[in-house]
Amino acid sequence: MAKSRFEYVRDFEQRDVLLPETYIVVRIDGKKFHAFSNYYGFEKPNDTRALKLMNACAKNVVLHYRSEVILAYGESDEYSFILRSDTTLYNRRVDKISSLFVSLFTSQYVTLWLKFFPDHPLDVKHLPFFDSRCVSYPNLKCIKDYLSWRFVDTHINNLYNTVFWQLVQKCGLTTREAENKLSGTVSSEKQEILFSECGINYNNEPEMFKKGSLITRKGDILHIDVIKKIDELFEGYK
Amino acid sequence: MAKSRFEYVRDFEQRDVLLPETYIVVRIDGKKFHAFSNYYGFEKPNDTRALKLMNACAKNVVLHYRSEVILAYGESDEYSFILRSDTTLYNRRVDKISSLFVSLFTSQYVTLWLKFFPDHPLDVKHLPFFDSRCVSYPNLKCIKDYLSWRFVDTHINNLYNTVFWQLVQKCGLTTREAENKLSGTVSSEKQEILFSECGINYNNEPEMFKKGSLITRKGDILHIDVIKKIDELFEGYK
Amino acid sequence: MAKSRFEYVRDFEQRDVLLPETYIVVRIDGKKFHAFSNYYGFEKPNDTRALKLMNACAKNVVLHYRSEVILAYGESDEYSFILRSDTTLYNRRVDKISSLFVSLFTSQYVTLWLKFFPDHPLDVKHLPFFDSRCVSYPNLKCIKDYLSWRFVDTHINNLYNTVFWQLVQKCGLTTREAENKLSGTVSSEKQEILFSECGINYNNEPEMFKKGSLITRKGDILHIDVIKKIDELFEGYK
Amino acid sequence: MAKSRFEYVRDFEQRDVLLPETYIVVRIDGKKFHAFSNYYGFEKPNDTRALKLMNACAKNVVLHYRSEVILAYGESDEYSFILRSDTTLYNRRVDKISSLFVSLFTSQYVTLWLKFFPDHPLDVKHLPFFDSRCVSYPNLKCIKDYLSWRFVDTHINNLYNTVFWQLVQKCGLTTREAENKLSGTVSSEKQEILFSECGINYNNEPEMFKKGSLITRKGDILHIDVIKKIDELFEGYK
Repeated sequence: MAKSRFEYVRDFEQRDVLLPETYIVVRIDGKKFHAFSNYYGFEKPNDTRALKLMNACAKNVVLHYRSEVILAYGESDEYSFILRSDTTLYNRRVDKISSLFVSLFTSQYVTLWLKFFPDHPLDVKHLPFFDSRCVSYPNLKCIKDYLSWRFVDTHINNLYNTVFWQLVQKCGLTTREAENKLSGTVSSEKQEILFSECGINYNNEPEMFKKGSLITRKGDILHIDVIKKIDELFEGYK
Repeated sequence: MAKSRFEYVRDFEQRDVLLPETYIVVRIDGKKFHAFSNYYGFEKPNDTRALKLMNACAKNVVLHYRSEVILAYGESDEYSFILRSDTTLYNRRVDKISSLFVSLFTSQYVTLWLKFFPDHPLDVKHLPFFDSRCVSYPNLKCIKDYLSWRFVDTHINNLYNTVFWQLVQKCGLTTREAENKLSGTVSSEKQEILFSECGINYNNEPEMFKKGSLITRKGDILHIDVIKKIDELFEGYK
Repeated sequence: MAKSRFEYVRDFEQRDVLLPETYIVVRIDGKKFHAFSNYYGFEKPNDTRALKLMNACAKNVVLHYRSEVILAYGESDEYSFILRSDTTLYNRRVDKISSLFVSLFTSQYVTLWLKFFPDHPLDVKHLPFFDSRCVSYPNLKCIKDYLSWRFVDTHINNLYNTVFWQLVQKCGLTTREAENKLSGTVSSEKQEILFSECGINYNNEPEMFKKGSLITRKGDILHIDVIKKIDELFEGYK
Repeated sequence: MAKSRFEYVRDFEQRDVLLPETYIVVRIDGKKFHAFSNYYGFEKPNDTRALKLMNACAKNVVLHYRSEVILAYGESDEYSFILRSDTTLYNRRVDKISSLFVSLFTSQYVTLWLKFFPDHPLDVKHLPFFDSRCVSYPNLKCIKDYLSWRFVDTHINNLYNTVFWQLVQKCGLTTREAENKLSGTVSSEKQEILFSECGINYNNEPEMFKKGSLITRKGDILHIDVIKKIDELFEGYK
């Protein structure tokens, strides 16, 4: 409403727009969640309550933007929302999309916190927050590769963390000793160490830990092999 | 940790950096707060609880980033955080600064909500969220003009809204009639209408409504004439 | 080689990179070529020498960058160079690609000028120059539509200009009268005016005027219906 | 003029604008000028004709844009044009400014070539061309530091090249030997080698080689100590 002689300062704003006809990924990531998870006593290496909280928030974000989102995929303290290549949401402005997704997600996270951590009310000096970025992908192959990249990351991180914390918690190794023991090992060797030294078969670990969480447009939360299902997931998109 | 053949998808990220030696404004703005404020029964035209909640959140954000922030200024459902021109926060990356400020603010808003609205718990289907943008200003004059722009906007909006709602609530005009009555009037005429028809002296309205809220680096919340104090506020900055 | 305390000024450079796996169009366009063409006495509405000069320059640019260019298309004082989506030329930096294409084109234009205008040496106070821009297109459909856009533009402009100048030069209308006569007419009406009033069948006009010029990677210069041949032109590209 | 269903392809263009109230540097730089200078037999380490040609071109560019340019500074095959912080040239669009400056410079270079190299007509297969970039500087201190950066670079490069080529041309060292001899030496040592081994006092070298070339808004070409004169050069600019 206001028009003043100071109005010219608006000309300094730069409105970056994501290239039309490209898929948009909005990836949010917990800020200093290592310290945050220590403060609130998250279980290592995976805290089921924390993961389910992330999933509940992401599901609500997906449902809020259901006409624009193809799917969302998350692990640990991060989530990626994949938007249709033909979306015109907020005129494809980077600042709007990036900030509104992360703000809505954060709002959900704080609101739903007590449902998942009823005994640990949030302390105003240690609040959760997230960063966010938008990335454009011009075709179906590379947006699928993006998803595969996050899926492989989930697998590698979870396997490492599972063996590492079992060695520490069950076998009494120091964190340094566990680190040294795993240094340079490949996946099969890590699984062998986990089995022979900790008596744990990695295959029997919870699917949510091993595979991350996939949220469909309808809000279903799945823990599946993303790579095997990838063509199916994008069926109907060019 | 993970290195896979999908790693190339990182090359699609574009890391925009704000020009060095420029002041940075991060402005956050409530998303559809008209509907939000109706849903939770905010008083018109100003809800003291809602403004104090905004101020409390902004204060905590300022204190969190106290070594980077010069001051913050807010009105209604928006807040501007002004960062030092020599800040190297997050290497001046737009996406990091913009998203982390809005996410921390949102986290505060939801956490502190019940303190200011104890009788209205948040409904997960009507959560508050905010957009965010970063703007660079290359010199002291234009960053001061930015602040003046927001201050003048506060004045003009608040005067209009005050008269408008008084005409409706006190004098029984319809919103359409109030709109028509104010159409084309200048500030002094609006003040005159407010006085003669509603018996209210605008000068006696609360300072927070008329002048917005200014937060210093130390976290003090002031309701002052920003334009008069502007040189003092930026003393010590080039 | 030099490292000085002033080196920090390099941090102010922003290196924009074109999104990977997108087609790149570099379009150059004559600066104030209306005045330029008047100064050097170009024939209206088309000067064959000037068009052939443009084609010769574009051909040499294509041959210089032959491993990166799919084709080039030109009309009047503009040319578009279409680069492969997988090109890594200059690391896909906008500033490098845009400036080097326009600089090489300009260098060719001045060098070859006398071959096409042997009687009109260039005057240092009226030199030709061009602007340049880079645009990304994420898929084959839209890069084909880009080419169609320029082709349709060639047709519409050339038809208008042909009739306009015939009315002026042959029928003795003033430019204002010719403008009024053509205002609001569709293509078929313009062709009819050209035939009935100037005795000219538009179909018999030179192909280069009607269809513009297409340069293949091998350097062949064709004047064809781009839209009909478009699938063939991009055969082998995804 | 043309409006077709293909018009939508214009939406893919991104119009980057340089931040208002910042100084703009347009720096152009010869593309593969090492090979170019070898091909046309430039003298080592400095070719007076080539430098004067650069200066003549830059002078004409400055005069063309005289109301926007504060000064230009050049050395070797590069030139920097410094534009007023309040310029609105081409609405401060990066692509327009960058491409038109480099295109006009190139046009001048080819046109004026024969005046400086009358015995070496340009060969169409070995034409000169340049890249170009725009950089914003938000205040007077950093734009002065930019100029100092280029000036120091001129000094360091020219001293090195002068000694290097004297050692090769006069003292018969191989290029490898000269390189080794100069490796790790500071300025004073290089000057001492030049004096004791080649009998040359660096102070007596031509000013244009040692100090580069500065072009004022009026088109005067000066070879002066830029750093000493820098306050004077920017007098009247904020």
